[in-house]
Amino acid sequence: MKERSLIQQIRKMAASSANSAVKAGIGDDCAVLRLKPGFELLVTTDFCIENVHFRRAWHPPTVVGHRCLTRGLSDVAAMGGEPLACFLSLGLPADVPQSWVNGFLRGLLALARRHNVQLAGGDVSSAPQITADIIVTGQVPAGTAVLRSGAQPGDRIYVTGSLGASAAPLKQLFAGKPVKPSKSSPHFYPTPRIKVGDWLRKKRLVTAMIDLSDGLSVDLAHICSESGVGASLISNRIPIAKNADLDLALNGGEDYELLFTARRKTKIPARIAGISVTEIGEIRNRRDYSSAIQILEDNGKVRPLPQRGWEHFSR
Amino acid sequence: MKERSLIQQIRKMAASSANSAVKAGIGDDCAVLRLKPGFELLVTTDFCIENVHFRRAWHPPTVVGHRCLTRGLSDVAAMGGEPLACFLSLGLPADVPQSWVNGFLRGLLALARRHNVQLAGGDVSSAPQITADIIVTGQVPAGTAVLRSGAQPGDRIYVTGSLGASAAPLKQLFAGKPVKPSKSSPHFYPTPRIKVGDWLRKKRLVTAMIDLSDGLSVDLAHICSESGVGASLISNRIPIAKNADLDLALNGGEDYELLFTARRKTKIPARIAGISVTEIGEIRNRRDYSSAIQILEDNGKVRPLPQRGWEHFSR
Repeated sequence: MKERSLIQQIRKMAASSANSAVKAGIGDDCAVLRLKPGFELLVTTDFCIENVHFRRAWHPPTVVGHRCLTRGLSDVAAMGGEPLACFLSLGLPADVPQSWVNGFLRGLLALARRHNVQLAGGDVSSAPQITADIIVTGQVPAGTAVLRSGAQPGDRIYVTGSLGASAAPLKQLFAGKPVKPSKSSPHFYPTPRIKVGDWLRKKRLVTAMIDLSDGLSVDLAHICSESGVGASLISNRIPIAKNADLDLALNGGEDYELLFTARRKTKIPARIAGISVTEIGEIRNRRDYSSAIQILEDNGKVRPLPQRGWEHFSR
Repeated sequence: MKERSLIQQIRKMAASSANSAVKAGIGDDCAVLRLKPGFELLVTTDFCIENVHFRRAWHPPTVVGHRCLTRGLSDVAAMGGEPLACFLSLGLPADVPQSWVNGFLRGLLALARRHNVQLAGGDVSSAPQITADIIVTGQVPAGTAVLRSGAQPGDRIYVTGSLGASAAPLKQLFAGKPVKPSKSSPHFYPTPRIKVGDWLRKKRLVTAMIDLSDGLSVDLAHICSESGVGASLISNRIPIAKNADLDLALNGGEDYELLFTARRKTKIPARIAGISVTEIGEIRNRRDYSSAIQILEDNGKVRPLPQRGWEHFSR
């Protein structure tokens, strides 16, 4: 595939996506976007690299495209933001057929259209393995973005949906068992929680928020680190997905649920935008513990929770 | 290198860069930026992949970092924009030492500081070859971004600086001759023409603009394609860099000069922000020619100019 014809193909397919904030999309040196007056810009970038984030044998191209954009949309959800436009830097080895690229773009753009996100630019290159970098931009009323840094001792910890559903089939795949990439599988077709994040920001109920991409143990540690606090989880409160177990729920990653904290007296509904919400623990003063996060187990014992989530460099 | 310690190192070094538009930088799900009221956002993404855009044996890490950010800044310059923040997605093979990463970041951040650009986010991953994707955001007063699509028949074509200076040492390197990466070399330390682009936008002198990253023959074709016009170049007007030749000036790429068009009667100064500006041809009606671009040679003959610039996929 020639660089020029690849760009033309992407541009042609991207025309099915649209957002009125985009004043100039693919075809210039930069895209031009106009935010609503009084809004701030959100920017996030996420890699999807072959054999690191997906395998061609396990993940069909539409799944890779869907998962790729989910990573960015989920980051915008975790700020309580409204996504506007995405940008795709796509590196391809010579052996990748046009059909793979088209499938990838179809998966990415189907999700983009569902969230009114326009594919508005990017770059292409040759690369030794399929390398996608997805950039998502969004907007949020000035000063209202929900950060990781606002959690305080006494805050309650909440999580949306159930955890471990994405890692469970991955464990099967690693064990050599085939898994069908069904549309209803949170591993193959995860759902970014845009509506939940937006609702929580609007209601101003939340003190800190993050999306669960690396795993609860790692992502909660990010909130603790940025907020300068510790945390205590209650094992039997954690919503474990069907077919998953506590280990996968704590350390599996790629659930793309939202993890957030709210003041002790704040009332958080049991469902937000149709998604269940569960209280799973409490923010504590960091010096209460030897490690940042502890977990109360079913046997009544408290143990430190190590951070064992997704670490690319350790695989 | 562990992912966590790599992110910490990037965050530590990025603290040397700053822009007041950045309300939240590295450390959250998204960066948060506030544009000036009445301004629009510019976004561009550019890959720098080992053995595609650079070689470790030829390009020291500081050079790779400098060249990487230049690609994005040059795109912002071509819109007449003011750069604000950059984002780095960085994929690394296991064999890359911390010293390489530090050198890369030093080169990138030295250029970022010179243009008041803050490194405000990104992603890290393992990768089979060094893979950097640089995203640059900028701002421009609403409706004033200079596009590629405004050129009209009769417009004059201008270029800044001289051409071929970046490709000349690359040709030497490909021929097996060592080249010292001196600070004054436009190949190793190219200068994005931010001030020239800004001046041209403010004066509203320009009908279309692009930066010369792929080579004059390819980048002028982009203006022609987006504007629906043809072009005629005058060979002996093209400012050829010392040590380069006409072929390198036309097809060499990576000059990061600005190519722009202006109405026939518009007076364009011979120097803008200290950089020479040369008139090199004229925009024509597309149907005047069999191909989009023709060149008048020294011998008085006119020939079609093929697009032979940088095409990653053809190498």
